[in-house]
Amino acid sequence: MPNTDKRWIVGVDVGGTNIVVGLLPMGGGEVLALRVLPTESQRGPKFVVDRIVEMVEASIAEVLEAHEGRRDQIAGVGIGSPGPLERTTGVVINTPNLGWRNFPLRDLIANAVNLPATLDNDANCATYGEWWLGAAKDVDTLVGLTLGTGIGGGIVFAGVIFHGVSDVAGEIGHMTIDSTGRRCKCGNYGCLEAYASGPAIALRAAEGIDAGVETVLIDMVDGRLDEITAATVYEGVVAGDAYAEEVMKDTAKFLGAGIANIINILNPEMVVISGGVTRAGDHLFAPLRAEVRRRAFRAAEERCSIVSGSLPGTAGVVGAAAVFKKEMFGEV
Amino acid sequence: MPNTDKRWIVGVDVGGTNIVVGLLPMGGGEVLALRVLPTESQRGPKFVVDRIVEMVEASIAEVLEAHEGRRDQIAGVGIGSPGPLERTTGVVINTPNLGWRNFPLRDLIANAVNLPATLDNDANCATYGEWWLGAAKDVDTLVGLTLGTGIGGGIVFAGVIFHGVSDVAGEIGHMTIDSTGRRCKCGNYGCLEAYASGPAIALRAAEGIDAGVETVLIDMVDGRLDEITAATVYEGVVAGDAYAEEVMKDTAKFLGAGIANIINILNPEMVVISGGVTRAGDHLFAPLRAEVRRRAFRAAEERCSIVSGSLPGTAGVVGAAAVFKKEMFGEV
Repeated sequence: MPNTDKRWIVGVDVGGTNIVVGLLPMGGGEVLALRVLPTESQRGPKFVVDRIVEMVEASIAEVLEAHEGRRDQIAGVGIGSPGPLERTTGVVINTPNLGWRNFPLRDLIANAVNLPATLDNDANCATYGEWWLGAAKDVDTLVGLTLGTGIGGGIVFAGVIFHGVSDVAGEIGHMTIDSTGRRCKCGNYGCLEAYASGPAIALRAAEGIDAGVETVLIDMVDGRLDEITAATVYEGVVAGDAYAEEVMKDTAKFLGAGIANIINILNPEMVVISGGVTRAGDHLFAPLRAEVRRRAFRAAEERCSIVSGSLPGTAGVVGAAAVFKKEMFGEV
Repeated sequence: MPNTDKRWIVGVDVGGTNIVVGLLPMGGGEVLALRVLPTESQRGPKFVVDRIVEMVEASIAEVLEAHEGRRDQIAGVGIGSPGPLERTTGVVINTPNLGWRNFPLRDLIANAVNLPATLDNDANCATYGEWWLGAAKDVDTLVGLTLGTGIGGGIVFAGVIFHGVSDVAGEIGHMTIDSTGRRCKCGNYGCLEAYASGPAIALRAAEGIDAGVETVLIDMVDGRLDEITAATVYEGVVAGDAYAEEVMKDTAKFLGAGIANIINILNPEMVVISGGVTRAGDHLFAPLRAEVRRRAFRAAEERCSIVSGSLPGTAGVVGAAAVFKKEMFGEV
């Protein structure tokens, strides 16, 4: 192991909406020199890569200056990206949200910053981040869910991300919970993501309003229903709106069915959930836990904590750095 | 490792319908002195344990006589049972089909035959048996499904059964594929088992006939619809009956949704399916593979073989013996 006091790893979390970059001390700790910028993928892959490289260089410069460090104290760059992707080649196979196909993201960044780099799935990274420094420290059998534009998942067994045979493992958002149900962006029907992602929550809310429900949500968007987001629903819940509460409860039921499946199949010690919707707190978690109790095997359910992540906004960066550390040094 | 030429392990597979017992040479090979008897659990737990013990002693005696062996060449007994169960204590927590609660099955048998014994879930054993000596030899990331009165599942990673935190992992039959769907015996709604187990296949077939469908199945049971079983449906398919074929295709679709979920979540190298319904061969597997292709991520689906088990009737016994070997000697 290197001298952990004096080395840092860059973590990069590339999302459909934002790019997040920060540095982690090799031995763990707070995220340093955190930067967040919009991805603006519509401006093309070169723009996105250039933006990532600029952010990485700026964060490195900030940390080295603050610590009077040298460039060789930067161990490398861990990158998290939507998938599917290939870890060995560092190529993103296909990301609808970013419009990339067979895109050699890892090496483009590694070459530009002249540092070694690793690539892993964004939700794997977020889960690994919670395991390394967040809510799931020391948890041996862990499943993570990231609720956002999509629903991502990650599985960590005994301190190692479980990747399966071709790096797809953990696509929990694309688990069918209603085999004849809503069409999902992935082409499948009835995926968890088609019910409980941010856009799906907003869509379900708008559908009820179209059907004539009265709710404060309408005023909150000045009658422009297509501006309802999952955050609007959350704010409606906080404002005490009965309909928003109902939409949140339905969300909890769909998530509960999906998490009960995970608990019956993997019998994990913890399920850690991250993403904006977790701000709803007990409005989400109380009905969610009740639904899981109703559906999962008792011997499994009573041994599983379902908790909110403790690294909002940075779990992906922390986990991307942890993946780099694991791959380069064998342990985190 | 012991001298594998001269030692045997007893495998016991306790099912809701039958008890199967046989001996495996320590180094693997054919099942010896195979015995099958009905479980007759309605006669009470003592009857079942006595029957198991008699079968174990008879099989041991047969093998030792044939090989002029001594009792100390029997390493011990591996037992597979429906769960949930606790491996460390050897206690079956609850099996609705057998009517047991907190039943110390392992030690009752171990004490009666004066040999060390291990206990694991029956579907875990069947999957492990296919991994040790069957269709899944040397497969690194394996999921097994057993289709029968219920639907069991087992997960094997790198030669080790994955048990989760409280020995429940692998309950794939109780994965929700229709969250507002059919009630399952487990209390949950829309479990895979409620659509694709033997009784569920029979029930769906009978429902269509109740609704007026014409089919050869009616004559096959002389009009007694409650005598339709999954085997009747299979025979109807072989006889070329269009309705039986439709019921089988629906079965394939439900199974396909469940297996696509498993493939998206665990990205295994192989899914091995065992149980009577696999006799339907391509009538089942062709639409099943098509449904999986339709639903699962391509990068995962194209790397996964979906195959029939190659140890019909004995996978559980082989796997129970393999579990014993793994627990006692550290490797299989």
